[in-house]
Amino acid sequence: MLRIAIIGATGYAGAEVVRLLTGHPHAALTYLTASGEREGKLLGDLYPSLRGCVDLTCRAVDIAAVAESADVCFIALSHGAMDYAPPLLERGVKVIDLGAEFRLKDAAAFEQWYKKPHTCPRLLERAVYGLPELFREQIRAAQLVANPGCYPTSAILPLYPLLERGMIDPTTIIVDSASGVSGAGRSKTTVDYLFSEVNEDFKAYNVAAHRHTPEIEQALSWAAGAPVTVTFTAHLLPITRGILTTTYATLVQRISTADVLAALHERYANEPFIRIYPEGELPQVKFATGSNFCDIGAKVDPRTNRVILISAEDNLIKGAAGQAVQNMTVMCGLDETTGLRTPPIFP
Amino acid sequence: MLRIAIIGATGYAGAEVVRLLTGHPHAALTYLTASGEREGKLLGDLYPSLRGCVDLTCRAVDIAAVAESADVCFIALSHGAMDYAPPLLERGVKVIDLGAEFRLKDAAAFEQWYKKPHTCPRLLERAVYGLPELFREQIRAAQLVANPGCYPTSAILPLYPLLERGMIDPTTIIVDSASGVSGAGRSKTTVDYLFSEVNEDFKAYNVAAHRHTPEIEQALSWAAGAPVTVTFTAHLLPITRGILTTTYATLVQRISTADVLAALHERYANEPFIRIYPEGELPQVKFATGSNFCDIGAKVDPRTNRVILISAEDNLIKGAAGQAVQNMTVMCGLDETTGLRTPPIFP
Amino acid sequence: MLRIAIIGATGYAGAEVVRLLTGHPHAALTYLTASGEREGKLLGDLYPSLRGCVDLTCRAVDIAAVAESADVCFIALSHGAMDYAPPLLERGVKVIDLGAEFRLKDAAAFEQWYKKPHTCPRLLERAVYGLPELFREQIRAAQLVANPGCYPTSAILPLYPLLERGMIDPTTIIVDSASGVSGAGRSKTTVDYLFSEVNEDFKAYNVAAHRHTPEIEQALSWAAGAPVTVTFTAHLLPITRGILTTTYATLVQRISTADVLAALHERYANEPFIRIYPEGELPQVKFATGSNFCDIGAKVDPRTNRVILISAEDNLIKGAAGQAVQNMTVMCGLDETTGLRTPPIFP
Amino acid sequence: MLRIAIIGATGYAGAEVVRLLTGHPHAALTYLTASGEREGKLLGDLYPSLRGCVDLTCRAVDIAAVAESADVCFIALSHGAMDYAPPLLERGVKVIDLGAEFRLKDAAAFEQWYKKPHTCPRLLERAVYGLPELFREQIRAAQLVANPGCYPTSAILPLYPLLERGMIDPTTIIVDSASGVSGAGRSKTTVDYLFSEVNEDFKAYNVAAHRHTPEIEQALSWAAGAPVTVTFTAHLLPITRGILTTTYATLVQRISTADVLAALHERYANEPFIRIYPEGELPQVKFATGSNFCDIGAKVDPRTNRVILISAEDNLIKGAAGQAVQNMTVMCGLDETTGLRTPPIFP
Repeated sequence: MLRIAIIGATGYAGAEVVRLLTGHPHAALTYLTASGEREGKLLGDLYPSLRGCVDLTCRAVDIAAVAESADVCFIALSHGAMDYAPPLLERGVKVIDLGAEFRLKDAAAFEQWYKKPHTCPRLLERAVYGLPELFREQIRAAQLVANPGCYPTSAILPLYPLLERGMIDPTTIIVDSASGVSGAGRSKTTVDYLFSEVNEDFKAYNVAAHRHTPEIEQALSWAAGAPVTVTFTAHLLPITRGILTTTYATLVQRISTADVLAALHERYANEPFIRIYPEGELPQVKFATGSNFCDIGAKVDPRTNRVILISAEDNLIKGAAGQAVQNMTVMCGLDETTGLRTPPIFP
Repeated sequence: MLRIAIIGATGYAGAEVVRLLTGHPHAALTYLTASGEREGKLLGDLYPSLRGCVDLTCRAVDIAAVAESADVCFIALSHGAMDYAPPLLERGVKVIDLGAEFRLKDAAAFEQWYKKPHTCPRLLERAVYGLPELFREQIRAAQLVANPGCYPTSAILPLYPLLERGMIDPTTIIVDSASGVSGAGRSKTTVDYLFSEVNEDFKAYNVAAHRHTPEIEQALSWAAGAPVTVTFTAHLLPITRGILTTTYATLVQRISTADVLAALHERYANEPFIRIYPEGELPQVKFATGSNFCDIGAKVDPRTNRVILISAEDNLIKGAAGQAVQNMTVMCGLDETTGLRTPPIFP
Repeated sequence: MLRIAIIGATGYAGAEVVRLLTGHPHAALTYLTASGEREGKLLGDLYPSLRGCVDLTCRAVDIAAVAESADVCFIALSHGAMDYAPPLLERGVKVIDLGAEFRLKDAAAFEQWYKKPHTCPRLLERAVYGLPELFREQIRAAQLVANPGCYPTSAILPLYPLLERGMIDPTTIIVDSASGVSGAGRSKTTVDYLFSEVNEDFKAYNVAAHRHTPEIEQALSWAAGAPVTVTFTAHLLPITRGILTTTYATLVQRISTADVLAALHERYANEPFIRIYPEGELPQVKFATGSNFCDIGAKVDPRTNRVILISAEDNLIKGAAGQAVQNMTVMCGLDETTGLRTPPIFP
Repeated sequence: MLRIAIIGATGYAGAEVVRLLTGHPHAALTYLTASGEREGKLLGDLYPSLRGCVDLTCRAVDIAAVAESADVCFIALSHGAMDYAPPLLERGVKVIDLGAEFRLKDAAAFEQWYKKPHTCPRLLERAVYGLPELFREQIRAAQLVANPGCYPTSAILPLYPLLERGMIDPTTIIVDSASGVSGAGRSKTTVDYLFSEVNEDFKAYNVAAHRHTPEIEQALSWAAGAPVTVTFTAHLLPITRGILTTTYATLVQRISTADVLAALHERYANEPFIRIYPEGELPQVKFATGSNFCDIGAKVDPRTNRVILISAEDNLIKGAAGQAVQNMTVMCGLDETTGLRTPPIFP
């Protein structure tokens, strides 16, 4: 039985890791942390949904205690993984960071986009970017996994195979995404995220300046074997969970929708959490909600010779906690689908 | 042209008064107040929806300046009307308070339910409870109007005529209401009102302890000519605007739905903002949204000899700003529907 | 391995049974039916959410084939269980009917409320009302279980213990419920259920005439040992899943909230799917969504000597498919929580 | 007083024209049509929101009667304007068609995209494309106005000035739009538009095949003075009203956000229904809801030398009925803002 700690268990992503690991046959939660007035409280008092499902009290972060209690530690914080990961790794704990601090290989790029210094750049080399469908072997051997951002997961998975094969012009990529509000987290208690302001609204935000841009570009550059720059636009949807990403790129040759789908099928054959949609059908947010699926569809527009890729995922699952649990299974040699087989919840 | 000030123009209710008075033929906004970092800003920068529609900067509260600039002052604050109303009245300004501080005639009841002392109890006698359909003559002569609460408006209007006529047993009244989230205001930036928490949820709150209870009971007691006690339950709906109130009461005699509707029709004949629904049809929140209507329907349950009353209104209009503007027209001798004739916006 | 058939697998309730049984350790889906143009299609083509999760084609209803393929048959139809249940029972198949046709013991009451004749009234005696928390022993021995309605489940569970103990006056019960739209089913493609009409709305419907009324009364009469009549009002919430029921009743004696909660705790001690909320906290729809829980809370209003009971459930799970699966486990001697332990999905 | 007929008054767009003209100082509704079982009913019985606001019965289409009753006729049908417009124009009635049948100048393009023959192609020359901000002089002289589609309005207004000035490369335009569900109309009573299916969802539809594509291209070609081809993607938002369009185009030269905004400001100076957002701020759907505004913002991405244009409108107002009323005022020489000055309704 793997012993599991979660640093930051009271945010939406952390609590979602708890939910997914509840009743897991090979993992047992042993240590949950929370800060401020949440420390000392039962998680079920902070999330009544979990009452009767998990019986753990949130504690302060005590690295020595975490290391004694856990084989694997999930870090689900906006800030702080740079502080906690090094001592945990030293003590032999496997670390999966759901935040952004180990995703970019280039510390300078991190500092430019995140406006803060990187305090352990030497770990960036060791950290593995945790997209199992693309980097499974490296994850298998990793002690530290940087769990991808929600938008990047949905953008990279459909584009990667097409760039690898040189099917699209890498200078023409536009990624247009829309996310549910849970992506903002539970601590964003500002006017912008009040129900009355978000409901019946739709807006673009952080246009041409979103921090997920360099993360998308890093992975696409690996795929293309050369630097790729993209335009990325995030939008806020009046829904709780889910991301839909619409990606545009110009095709290098005149190929058909079927050709694009064939390339995706070939790359992701046997992937348990990728569903390629048949020609004529496209993913919708809700078909993936509640599951660890990333659904992908495509349509070629022969009038403009562009391909339009549509991908959908639950931002808290394949876009965060589910992918983190998937990474855990890969790192620890478990069946990759354990605890993640629940079908989407519909309607 | 009436000159209008609004103290607290940047809350939802205050901004709604602004919206309703924009383009009003007989009223001109002259003075808007806001506190904190909002002071000194254009209202259109705080509410981009109003950009290009109103060109006023929010100022600090300066009672002398307000009194010089305005004939009528709306106060749209949770706390503070007790401080501002007396000096404004002294200076001859008519005051319409959208808050709760002048609604209860009994200062002790106010202090018990609102947990704070009443600092000008002598004004309670002068204040008129601003439900024009019931107290139009007093409002006409008033200098100070206490604009009713959103829930009380929806509960009192259907019950009043039935109590006046002794049609229902006053000991059996249960008022079950549900409101959109805008009722909580724009300053409630807590986890409870985040989109992700409210969306796809429904809950009861302040059960058997809601502050609108004594306000409902006060008006119903006037109708019954004797003290009335009710059970009142508020619920939070995952919508922005609107209240639906379902009221239960046992009938004194075996009468029909048609009899109840006839009593309502008779009481509210010629009322421009009350719509009594025909037998077999019932109000829905959305049929009133965006308008100053209070819609009322009824159904008698012969199996239990209870009447079920359904009332609907836009909580920010008939439940707050619209009723306040309606009170203004009555106090100032204008046509009561001026500026309030816009039909509901549907769908 | 139990072999499972579902008649009516393409409605929301039927598809939810499929979802819950996917990956079940002791049950395997063998036969799904659908009618009209859905016959012959893969369920995953009708519910893309289930693509890759279940690989069965929908077939026409053929009772002989169903009986050969299945040990247990769920019937998830509005109409038709009266036709299919008798021949299935004859062939030794256990039947769980999610519809209303076997819920009322009194065929005359059925005919009065449902406006159609009952074609096999003799089965009403054999049918067991499938609320495991109250009737587990009878269910264990049953061949035919009438799965309760969604509203009745939420109304009966909190009231039953209080009536059994004579704590409330049975003539004063008012049940005020609100349900998400999925309760209307997938085949109600009328204007009333279009997104644009339901969204931002809230309405009461079938007031004093809802078909769940006699079902609630039947169970409450069993609890009270005498006929109970209630006022029941259903409302339509602009959410997909979930029911919140607010129930009012006058207390026979002056007791406290703690007394009421103690009675509930005692009755439901060790029930895996009932959560009694601590004093001062109340259930919310969203705390139960995605789970088989029925959450219950209570508050006594000493001013009126009424108790207000709040109960919440996912209408498609504890209110339909989850309870049906729970009944299956009881009828077949499995651990009652198998396949139903997933915590609620929040936010 | 202009006398107004509406053919198709019971769809969302037609009923919105009714709502906007209710209480209009220079226009009086005289003739409303509806088909099927809606014929002979009061509009207020079909739209209870309008009860007490408009007192007209829906009648069958009788062109002679319409022509006798009305100076201006709005046609708000999916199909049929080709039949009704010619005889109305012959009888001297001004016609504003909210449908698509007179928008494309090229009958062959119409037939290709709409899959039906055009029965009066000679009228296409006379029809004026009703975007007053761009074609006001032609509209002033028109007898027949083709009211633009909702998506095209939001796409053309921001792009037109940039193409006129040659600021963007016309081969790089990608228009990514998202609309509220009311755009589908009230008669689309299929599973796809049920609340439970749309709620908490987001999807692309008619990808690379939407009928608004040639309409957008036609207007952009006029602006560019040469044929323009675009990629256009429509998405369905889980909101009732509103469109947000995110448009991407590569800049011809390295210019700044301020340069783009200056071009927009210059083109739309003095336009009462266009609001250009200041640098650093962007439109949101909800800031325009309930109004006739089209809000426009821009951001240049220097990393890719693309401009991202964001535009927002209420699809039923500036995207349909409001623009139609605006066209009426232009055609009839009224003040263009009469009846359209209501500020957006927020929150």
